[in-house]
Amino acid sequence: MTSTGFVSIVGAGPGDPDLLTRKAVRRLRRADLVLYDALVDPRVIAIARRASRFYVGKRAGRHALTQDAIHALLVRAARRGLLVVRLKGGDPFVFGRGGEEALALTAAGIPFEVVPGITSAVAAPARAGIPVTHRGVSSAFLVVSGHDLSAFEAAVNGTQPDAVTLVVLMGMANRARLAASLIERGWPASTPAAVITGAWTPEEHVARCTLVELSLASDGAPDAPGTLVFGEVAALACAAVAATYESRERASAR
Amino acid sequence: MTSTGFVSIVGAGPGDPDLLTRKAVRRLRRADLVLYDALVDPRVIAIARRASRFYVGKRAGRHALTQDAIHALLVRAARRGLLVVRLKGGDPFVFGRGGEEALALTAAGIPFEVVPGITSAVAAPARAGIPVTHRGVSSAFLVVSGHDLSAFEAAVNGTQPDAVTLVVLMGMANRARLAASLIERGWPASTPAAVITGAWTPEEHVARCTLVELSLASDGAPDAPGTLVFGEVAALACAAVAATYESRERASAR
Repeated sequence: MTSTGFVSIVGAGPGDPDLLTRKAVRRLRRADLVLYDALVDPRVIAIARRASRFYVGKRAGRHALTQDAIHALLVRAARRGLLVVRLKGGDPFVFGRGGEEALALTAAGIPFEVVPGITSAVAAPARAGIPVTHRGVSSAFLVVSGHDLSAFEAAVNGTQPDAVTLVVLMGMANRARLAASLIERGWPASTPAAVITGAWTPEEHVARCTLVELSLASDGAPDAPGTLVFGEVAALACAAVAATYESRERASAR
Repeated sequence: MTSTGFVSIVGAGPGDPDLLTRKAVRRLRRADLVLYDALVDPRVIAIARRASRFYVGKRAGRHALTQDAIHALLVRAARRGLLVVRLKGGDPFVFGRGGEEALALTAAGIPFEVVPGITSAVAAPARAGIPVTHRGVSSAFLVVSGHDLSAFEAAVNGTQPDAVTLVVLMGMANRARLAASLIERGWPASTPAAVITGAWTPEEHVARCTLVELSLASDGAPDAPGTLVFGEVAALACAAVAATYESRERASAR
């Protein structure tokens, strides 16, 4: 008789495998089955050496599997006694549909856990030297999806740029429209903005501009991943100097 | 001649050492000097075996060191050639004053990096089975400090409970007043609320109630750490069942 397996809903963080948690690494190493999404770095997936690994993600509305099919797969694999890792970019509960999967597992009586990951909402700005909160500048930050313009507008309604930093995930495709919408809602055209792509991957890039400049730029490709930051903190220049920890460590090797 | 050292501004996450990133663990193991804040778990500090370790935090307005003194200490230690870890609970750029320290290091020409940590703003709700975003329920979340009531009110101004999940850090001392303030601002009295303390530590506790119930409760102790969640997601019941990964792993040991 097989005992029931276990599902770990694991956040893979922003890309760099060194930003995985120790718990995530351990779960990946022991996994029998890994179901992963788009935007999970291949170096992270490779840690699950002994597991069968399947892509179940979606890009631009095209799904490899429906959400219901993913739920069914998780339940079936756990009932067969497997240690399953459901691997998601960033954190599973930040736009990751992890809540839906947790509810489905709860309903099916499957034991599971959530292993939080580093969310790009905080780590992508950090990589660009931008603190989402900063004493005397911003004591709150709003994380919102830029995928759906009307949901975005409902979420930012009433926000004041001197009180809140705005962090937009999944907003590259609509970035000009999002910026224009904020100006219409009373955000000053001169509000600093940052467009961060590929943070914590070898392709990282940061562009700084203002809200009006972004509103006049073109929208991005439908699938471009990236993080937008709007607010005074986006102008802070606490970028790390060029030296890296690794170069310092080599220099001091005795 | 001594080469310049290096400062790593490191997020310690919510408590559980298994939620440290691999990079954070490596930095701690190699550190010569660790300056840590209140709310960093002793099990995390203990990883820095070869380092001198100093508490520089503050509780209830009483500072072990002023912020300027911390900056001076970081600069002086790096100039002496040390590998310094500046260790903060959660993420360094989420209410951690990491931005101020990064600016001070930039101004002094000290090489440094930021190592993001798992923020309690997401991980504490997750531990309670609460996803801060959830399809069809909430597509945005606002993270705000509850320490200063007027800053809180500026940040939540205009928010709509059907569009935004509200996550309050440092709000235990004012929790009843914060809840009352939301009701005054038009949030329904029946809005679900969760009060999470000690998440990811052996002392974790979750209380679920409504906004009006919380407004009628008493405020917390001045220093009580905890996370408040307001919004429909706080009523979701995707709590993990009692079995743990460890118990499953033991059962399957062959």
